[in-house]
Amino acid sequence: MGRGNKQIESAMAQTDIAERVYNHTWKLDPIIRSLLDTDFYKFLMLQMIWGLYSDVDVTFSLINRTKTVRLADEIDEGELRAQLDHARTLKFTKKEMIWLAGNTFYGRKQIFTPDFLHWLQGFQLPEYELTRKDGQYILNFEGPWTHTTMWEIPALSIINELRSRAAMRNLGRFELDILYARAKAKMWSKVERLKKYPDIRISDFGTRRRHSFLWQRWCVEALKEGIGRSFTGTSNVLLAMNNDLEAIGTNAHELPMVVAALANNDEELRTAPYRVMQDWNRYYGGNLLVALPDAFGTAAFLRNAPQWVADWTGFRPDSAPPIEGGERIIKWWKDHGKDPREKLIVFSDALDVDTIEETYKHFQGRVRMSFGWGTNLTNDFAGCAPDDIKELDAISLVCKVTHANGRPAVKLSDNPEKAIGEPSEIRRYLQFFGNEERVSKPVRV
Amino acid sequence: MGRGNKQIESAMAQTDIAERVYNHTWKLDPIIRSLLDTDFYKFLMLQMIWGLYSDVDVTFSLINRTKTVRLADEIDEGELRAQLDHARTLKFTKKEMIWLAGNTFYGRKQIFTPDFLHWLQGFQLPEYELTRKDGQYILNFEGPWTHTTMWEIPALSIINELRSRAAMRNLGRFELDILYARAKAKMWSKVERLKKYPDIRISDFGTRRRHSFLWQRWCVEALKEGIGRSFTGTSNVLLAMNNDLEAIGTNAHELPMVVAALANNDEELRTAPYRVMQDWNRYYGGNLLVALPDAFGTAAFLRNAPQWVADWTGFRPDSAPPIEGGERIIKWWKDHGKDPREKLIVFSDALDVDTIEETYKHFQGRVRMSFGWGTNLTNDFAGCAPDDIKELDAISLVCKVTHANGRPAVKLSDNPEKAIGEPSEIRRYLQFFGNEERVSKPVRV
Repeated sequence: MGRGNKQIESAMAQTDIAERVYNHTWKLDPIIRSLLDTDFYKFLMLQMIWGLYSDVDVTFSLINRTKTVRLADEIDEGELRAQLDHARTLKFTKKEMIWLAGNTFYGRKQIFTPDFLHWLQGFQLPEYELTRKDGQYILNFEGPWTHTTMWEIPALSIINELRSRAAMRNLGRFELDILYARAKAKMWSKVERLKKYPDIRISDFGTRRRHSFLWQRWCVEALKEGIGRSFTGTSNVLLAMNNDLEAIGTNAHELPMVVAALANNDEELRTAPYRVMQDWNRYYGGNLLVALPDAFGTAAFLRNAPQWVADWTGFRPDSAPPIEGGERIIKWWKDHGKDPREKLIVFSDALDVDTIEETYKHFQGRVRMSFGWGTNLTNDFAGCAPDDIKELDAISLVCKVTHANGRPAVKLSDNPEKAIGEPSEIRRYLQFFGNEERVSKPVRV
Repeated sequence: MGRGNKQIESAMAQTDIAERVYNHTWKLDPIIRSLLDTDFYKFLMLQMIWGLYSDVDVTFSLINRTKTVRLADEIDEGELRAQLDHARTLKFTKKEMIWLAGNTFYGRKQIFTPDFLHWLQGFQLPEYELTRKDGQYILNFEGPWTHTTMWEIPALSIINELRSRAAMRNLGRFELDILYARAKAKMWSKVERLKKYPDIRISDFGTRRRHSFLWQRWCVEALKEGIGRSFTGTSNVLLAMNNDLEAIGTNAHELPMVVAALANNDEELRTAPYRVMQDWNRYYGGNLLVALPDAFGTAAFLRNAPQWVADWTGFRPDSAPPIEGGERIIKWWKDHGKDPREKLIVFSDALDVDTIEETYKHFQGRVRMSFGWGTNLTNDFAGCAPDDIKELDAISLVCKVTHANGRPAVKLSDNPEKAIGEPSEIRRYLQFFGNEERVSKPVRV
């Protein structure tokens, strides 16, 4: 029994003094701790950009669509610079390089060439330009596309996590305890709803908008634990590596946006999205042949598409309402002689359990589906704080291509609220690609 | 930045080897770690028992009213013995004795006499007898009332916590995380409901039925944080001391039960409850004059009560439905010329937020009220486990006086389901005190 008593005293009184002093003198709690802490599609695109567009300069810019949130008032500039500076010190570790080279992605071995990996080994994030205007940060990344593209995800995760940290700064230990207990309970009730559909396919797309790295990790663990094989993986490469999950993702709007911006004539502009797809097809294949149809409007994309587009595995409608967008694509496949049941639609815009359930039930048995669940997976704290904290609500923050070789870049999307670019350029693109079937809906996240 | 990088590696890789080995070789995680980890009323009663009944032998026995739960199958006998044995090694520490002597209880300084405290200093829990029968434990504490009375609360907390531990033994780390996150979220939603009534008065009476010591502590912290001055304190003396809260409690059924068992004639039996109150009045006063009317039925108690009973501060109806029981007492006060608004009713039977709200609204403005919240405060895990675990549901476990100086003891209560004693003795008491107004309701907790 003596042992018992000694343990009690120890449990009550023992503090690891070294650890405590160490924790209390931390200068920085880094948000980005690995260059793999980014979305997988960045690597797939990067290999192609490095191969085909290594001479193109591309500017990425932070865009806060939630104008009511004054980021420069919420987040301290010194802290932001310290986090961005810290991310710039990172290099791929030996373990990470070995994993990228040796892992199987989408069923393919050696998806990355030795030359590309050799180049990647020396990679570091390039410089940034940070100023402030009207309560917002103006954050630009200018330089070779091969470098600036890699800022998108870490820049967004850093700003979103700094915003969460600021929002929670005044919470006591107990309030934080309640906050995370409720967030966990809330997340788990979503998991239990999704469990009801054993054939559903869901992956985590929430890196950029996450509340924090640790919270994203918890959400990923929750999905792995809760829905098992229905959880097909995570877009986050670091989490995929550490949790033995599939790294998920294909390509993004930046590819057609840059190629369109570089177009020298109407024909080049019209065919830009398809040229990107042809290049992609040369680099990758099979399950990676998932097209993003909405860069300049899905209607125009489908109308102008060559027949071979129907041979691709699937589409990722990223701004149309999921049921309407999905129906349009299914009709197009049928019109082009394809059986939609052999095709894949990846839904990824503004999903939450309600939308996922509704969409899944609607299309079940008619097409293969996959859900890339983002903001509402990794940053849903509504109703979780003991007293409402509006700064914990996710915002619509993106980091997008604004210029390519000095020319302005444009994204139209199927939702006019998500259009990006200079107003005169947006008008020009609209005139060129048309404005059919674009549906305005508020962009919350 | 070097500092940042060093920190990352440290955070990821550092394990305190000594602590880990120490934790992994624990022989016992003691449930009772202090003799103050019991209900405050035990000390108030003990002082009087020590003063007036030091020559009386009283047997306390474990009674599991939830017959469907086979405790001896759920809980390992070796673990139970180890915990009981460990509790027997405890003595009051110097700090604890100083606090008992120096603290103000119910507004009174030096509520405990120096002589009593001197005796208490040498106190240790006495022997126990443990056998098993039909899947249940037979656990008896025989000996001087001054000693056996102190087993009631630790015996119950030990068995309840061992049962929780057994119920959770097969849960993984993630499932435990969800379990406690949900329990916290659930508890906090109760706190938020109670917050709506700034004049409500609630205290923690949940020691005996708690899920675990740490969980009770968390619930007490939650009430302190959440409802502030509406939280009037805790019955748990250790938690009161460590959290600077009021220690709450007055007296229990064991006093009239023992005195009634020792009665040599009808007159002594009839007056037993009032004699206990007269003794109590000599020892304590003011806010501590709260009577427990239901030991042999509230109707008989009120019918036979001398006029001076109406001068007491209040009643604690412990087995009647709260609204009916409260109305009966209010009527009795009025019949005896008292203004109920100057009187106190302490509700303490089977409370949860619904009952508390309903009762509070019903009596608001008509009588002073206080709610002693027990099992549903410190042991409500319904719906919290990822998969339902029925072993986490609280059971109706009590530890009651069964004999005094060899004579059988009886409790009738206002709910026949809560009656305790040998059947022939219960019949004798019923004949003597009458069976009016006793309402049967299922005893869940």
